Amino acid sequence: MKHNFGAGPCILPQEVFKAASEAVLDFNGLSILEISHRSPDFVKVMEEARENVKKALDIPKGYTVLFLQGGASLGFLISAMNMAGKHKKAGYINTGAWSTKAIKEAKNAGLEVVEVASSEDKDFSYIPKVDDIPSDIDFLHYTSNNTIAGTQFKSIPDTDVPLVCDMSSDIFSMPIDVSKFDIIYAGAQKNLGPAGATLYIVKESILGKSTVDIPTYLDLQVQHKKDSMFNTPPVFSVFVSNLNLKHLLNNGGVDAMEKKNKEKAELLYNEIDSNPNFEGATAVEDRSLMNVTFRLTDENKKEQFDKLWNEGDIVGLKGHRSVGGYRASMYNALSVESVKALVNIMKSL
Amino acid sequence: MKHNFGAGPCILPQEVFKAASEAVLDFNGLSILEISHRSPDFVKVMEEARENVKKALDIPKGYTVLFLQGGASLGFLISAMNMAGKHKKAGYINTGAWSTKAIKEAKNAGLEVVEVASSEDKDFSYIPKVDDIPSDIDFLHYTSNNTIAGTQFKSIPDTDVPLVCDMSSDIFSMPIDVSKFDIIYAGAQKNLGPAGATLYIVKESILGKSTVDIPTYLDLQVQHKKDSMFNTPPVFSVFVSNLNLKHLLNNGGVDAMEKKNKEKAELLYNEIDSNPNFEGATAVEDRSLMNVTFRLTDENKKEQFDKLWNEGDIVGLKGHRSVGGYRASMYNALSVESVKALVNIMKSL
Repeated sequence: MKHNFGAGPCILPQEVFKAASEAVLDFNGLSILEISHRSPDFVKVMEEARENVKKALDIPKGYTVLFLQGGASLGFLISAMNMAGKHKKAGYINTGAWSTKAIKEAKNAGLEVVEVASSEDKDFSYIPKVDDIPSDIDFLHYTSNNTIAGTQFKSIPDTDVPLVCDMSSDIFSMPIDVSKFDIIYAGAQKNLGPAGATLYIVKESILGKSTVDIPTYLDLQVQHKKDSMFNTPPVFSVFVSNLNLKHLLNNGGVDAMEKKNKEKAELLYNEIDSNPNFEGATAVEDRSLMNVTFRLTDENKKEQFDKLWNEGDIVGLKGHRSVGGYRASMYNALSVESVKALVNIMKSL
Repeated sequence: MKHNFGAGPCILPQEVFKAASEAVLDFNGLSILEISHRSPDFVKVMEEARENVKKALDIPKGYTVLFLQGGASLGFLISAMNMAGKHKKAGYINTGAWSTKAIKEAKNAGLEVVEVASSEDKDFSYIPKVDDIPSDIDFLHYTSNNTIAGTQFKSIPDTDVPLVCDMSSDIFSMPIDVSKFDIIYAGAQKNLGPAGATLYIVKESILGKSTVDIPTYLDLQVQHKKDSMFNTPPVFSVFVSNLNLKHLLNNGGVDAMEKKNKEKAELLYNEIDSNPNFEGATAVEDRSLMNVTFRLTDENKKEQFDKLWNEGDIVGLKGHRSVGGYRASMYNALSVESVKALVNIMKSL
């Protein structure tokens, strides 16, 4: 049994893998890979998955849930196109590689972009203060958790401007107040399911109000009207996401996850702070509960440490190439025991 | 064991389902659903899959193979945007629902569209003659096989204009001369793999030459430069597609498939033509080898026939809602035995 600290696609519950594996062989008499997306069996899966997202996040009325494709990378474009309003101007908080890409696509969508706040001055190692939000923007966009830098917003920016958020890497890790957002989008491959699906949670009142031309696939109003089945959806990714959502709901939901994720983060950050061999890579108050970035204080110990964790069946600990050091991603399905295994290895260095 | 005549997502070889099911539990020590797309294990899968497409279709040098997302529905837009040239004008052959949607997206990409030929006058029940192709267009687009109508091009349109083809439903069913095309695209969920991946075969010399602005995800040059890993790909769909490609190559490749598909089509069309209870729904010379559309000559026998095939473990035979009647889709993995089972049921009516 390996301890999978990979940054995503990432670990999911073993029960989910087991049920998914079985459905590849037999799902009501056929393989889940060969059933029509228009069959009653799959339409039910899609509807259940959409409902389970609503249940898991306690989403208020007036929101639609969609499973599309293209990852957050296409989501950068889709969210900007669908939110374009009378100003054709948007505010972006720049907290790293993903925000930077989101800004680029907003421009590709034909919008003027105001960088409302940025932490680029210190290699995105902190979450910038957001004091001055212009009022003549159509929306404010931010990335709730930064997988590469290892930072995370601890609260939702306080503003009257419509909010759009890329929650790819921390959605379902804790409760969120969906009512504060116009669009939330998230690649599935962290706490939702396998790669190949992208989740959109969209306030229905924004649909059809864009001031730019939107190609059909990218139009959330079309996708909503077609009940997330405008074209063939990523059947298996939606199916496994639904298995995982059911597992989440049966195990205490996002409240239980938040508790577990805090426990894991405390274990690991405590070790980083108390062990002289290590140091955290971000501002303490902005530390991510999902992706813990840290460094050796003495680079000469790299070979020794790498040997230790590799032999300890730990995988996925290498930091992102743009940051270096180490990154322990601790998504929902990673057990406290896996974190303890890592901490013990760190102690043994 | 059911006989799956579904139009797609469709049947794949049982060996592929078995291997896919195992990999969900264990692929080099982790589930295929939890491995990083940047891990050497998956990079190898992606490279193998791209190479196996080249092998299977005997693709000449100068073409790149990409696995993207969004289905043919996003492919309509991607192909038009990337092929936009100095005329900003394209020719489309309209052979049904899919061509009609492709035309709409070409317009969304900012192109003027000339409908070079159409079979709309007879509900798309035939493939129109293409005599008069204007020379002032950037490319000519067609749909090689029409899943809804049940028609199929028997030859590649003869023209000097660059060709773009949506081959979603007949790619890998027979050899094709890839050198005639600038872009071929295809949703995976017929003869390639499970839903969630979309194949692009692109002449490298067209990359970066578009005359319209292309958002990053939709830019084939970006996707090519990133080796089909601009962002997280649909890992599992690519993995299973590669399993299926290996199965294809180990079983005689597209030549053997063409032979098998002709045999199956002959069996079924012979029955339709010789059994007074049935009639084909398309022009005889344009009949699809993949999707056989037919009707009862006496609608009063509908209940009886539906009972017979349902009891005979046949699934997916209902015609598309826009056409009615029946549709027997006979993709590569459907066995001759399954077709014989259907023919026997038709005989018993």
